[in-house]
Amino acid sequence: MIEKMIEQGLEAVDRNLSWMIASDVKLLEEAGRHIVTSGGKRIRPRLTMLAYLAAGAPTLDAVIPMAAAVELVHTATLVHDDINDHSTTRRGKDTVHVRWGRTFALLTGDYLFAKVYEMMAPYGADYNRLMSGACVRLVEGETLQAAAAKAGQMDRETYKTIISRKTASLFEVGARMAAMLAGADEKVIAGLSEYAYNMGLTFQIVDDILDIIGDPETMGKPVGSDLAQGRGVMVTQNGRKMGGHDGPLATAVTEAPEHDPVQAMMTRLRESGAVEVARLQALETAQRARQALAAVPDSAARDVLMEMVDLVIEREQ
Amino acid sequence: MIEKMIEQGLEAVDRNLSWMIASDVKLLEEAGRHIVTSGGKRIRPRLTMLAYLAAGAPTLDAVIPMAAAVELVHTATLVHDDINDHSTTRRGKDTVHVRWGRTFALLTGDYLFAKVYEMMAPYGADYNRLMSGACVRLVEGETLQAAAAKAGQMDRETYKTIISRKTASLFEVGARMAAMLAGADEKVIAGLSEYAYNMGLTFQIVDDILDIIGDPETMGKPVGSDLAQGRGVMVTQNGRKMGGHDGPLATAVTEAPEHDPVQAMMTRLRESGAVEVARLQALETAQRARQALAAVPDSAARDVLMEMVDLVIEREQ
Repeated sequence: MIEKMIEQGLEAVDRNLSWMIASDVKLLEEAGRHIVTSGGKRIRPRLTMLAYLAAGAPTLDAVIPMAAAVELVHTATLVHDDINDHSTTRRGKDTVHVRWGRTFALLTGDYLFAKVYEMMAPYGADYNRLMSGACVRLVEGETLQAAAAKAGQMDRETYKTIISRKTASLFEVGARMAAMLAGADEKVIAGLSEYAYNMGLTFQIVDDILDIIGDPETMGKPVGSDLAQGRGVMVTQNGRKMGGHDGPLATAVTEAPEHDPVQAMMTRLRESGAVEVARLQALETAQRARQALAAVPDSAARDVLMEMVDLVIEREQ
Repeated sequence: MIEKMIEQGLEAVDRNLSWMIASDVKLLEEAGRHIVTSGGKRIRPRLTMLAYLAAGAPTLDAVIPMAAAVELVHTATLVHDDINDHSTTRRGKDTVHVRWGRTFALLTGDYLFAKVYEMMAPYGADYNRLMSGACVRLVEGETLQAAAAKAGQMDRETYKTIISRKTASLFEVGARMAAMLAGADEKVIAGLSEYAYNMGLTFQIVDDILDIIGDPETMGKPVGSDLAQGRGVMVTQNGRKMGGHDGPLATAVTEAPEHDPVQAMMTRLRESGAVEVARLQALETAQRARQALAAVPDSAARDVLMEMVDLVIEREQ
């Protein structure tokens, strides 16, 4: 019943996105459609909708544009990220800048960002403040990540700050806005926000782990690509820097016989125990997500939110 | 008196911008501050504030964040434009991507766009819808311009569409939002919007003319840079295509003895009468701007708006 409702909701989100990115400037519409329809897990709109139901809303209608806007922020970011990372493949398809060139990819990202606010406008001041705040955090997180990659090192604290801003903020704000829209009380809003924030952290840590040990076929993209960019799971173990172009790993890589620095770094990371440390972190944030649901009244939606914690921890793509 | 008020308003806009772009991610704050404090004509916030007063508001306080947001949209666009155009100088200073690199410049533009909506949020749904609509138009205009530059030709109709979307839309929306905020009636709102829209067209045409015949010293940037990118005043004269890499001009350029295609194209454009055609267009849109003020009650602010038409037409930088 609730699964059906969410599936129908996701279809409505997709229709909403498809309708919103229409433009008489066909290039923008096509490039936008290329990335919007390229699949993706839709975890952000899914959580936004589930939070809305768990907060007491009977139907999904009013939250659809909001859930779509949350997904669109993520999508816009992907387009710009792929330019900056020189990524050629995304979700098994060419990236926008490979297909349309960098100039139009940059403009497509800007276009999708502007559309986010067109979708959010009707919700009014409080929601727009939250959404713009999440976008600011997201860009800050991306910037810290790029700066760390450039510096060639990232300690555990920086990694936490980065994934908090670039991923968890948007997860959190989606749930918070949905709970507010449902008219939930402060305690429930806080619980759902805390849940989604920790789901965001968990999701990102697992994502970074999969970039190292995942199966490229299942992932639909090359593994090691984050690592190649100086990003990904560069957590410290016992305070020692694990990654970076100048760190001990970089030295190991230089000395490695494989002559493929990314492969060498991946092997080294697998052997170093960094993946296990990251997995422990993910288990911890997952547990925090579960605990946050204590503030949320029992419901079918709450049950699904609880189950999703395991799905995110156990996912293989 | 009113000039003093506007000058103080512009100072308040600058303080607002400076305060808004603060971030604990210092790179974003510094890069944002670099472009925000690099001068610029501030014509958009000036018009927004004047429209607010002409619509009957007694003081500027409530319109300051709005005027700052309008200027910030323009500023964010400049950062991304400069990446796409490979421009190295802006307002006499290094462009953001020259100073910080393309990755951080792209993120700085995204950051400033997100801040726009943080500033706009408190105004509520109607204003956010207008502002996001203007941003969508702006990106559409930029895209059409890049597509025309790539195709190597631009007819007069396309040129009009481009400058309408990339420049006039934001001018218009600034004035419209300000007039709405002042509580003006529909007729006055429409008049001020129409005025600002035509001021946007005029401003952009003059800008494109100055790119061909302007003095680089006065302009603070190289002339011919737009032309070199396949942009600028590529209007038709008697329906004949004037610009573009494949058009008659391009042929002339190839045959030109100067061996500097941009200089050759500029010379040719000066001699062709294209500049005169563009100037006639600007005089026409300027006249429309003046006429639109007929719907606006007499006031000191309205007088300044009227004077600004001449200033825009006669400007040399």
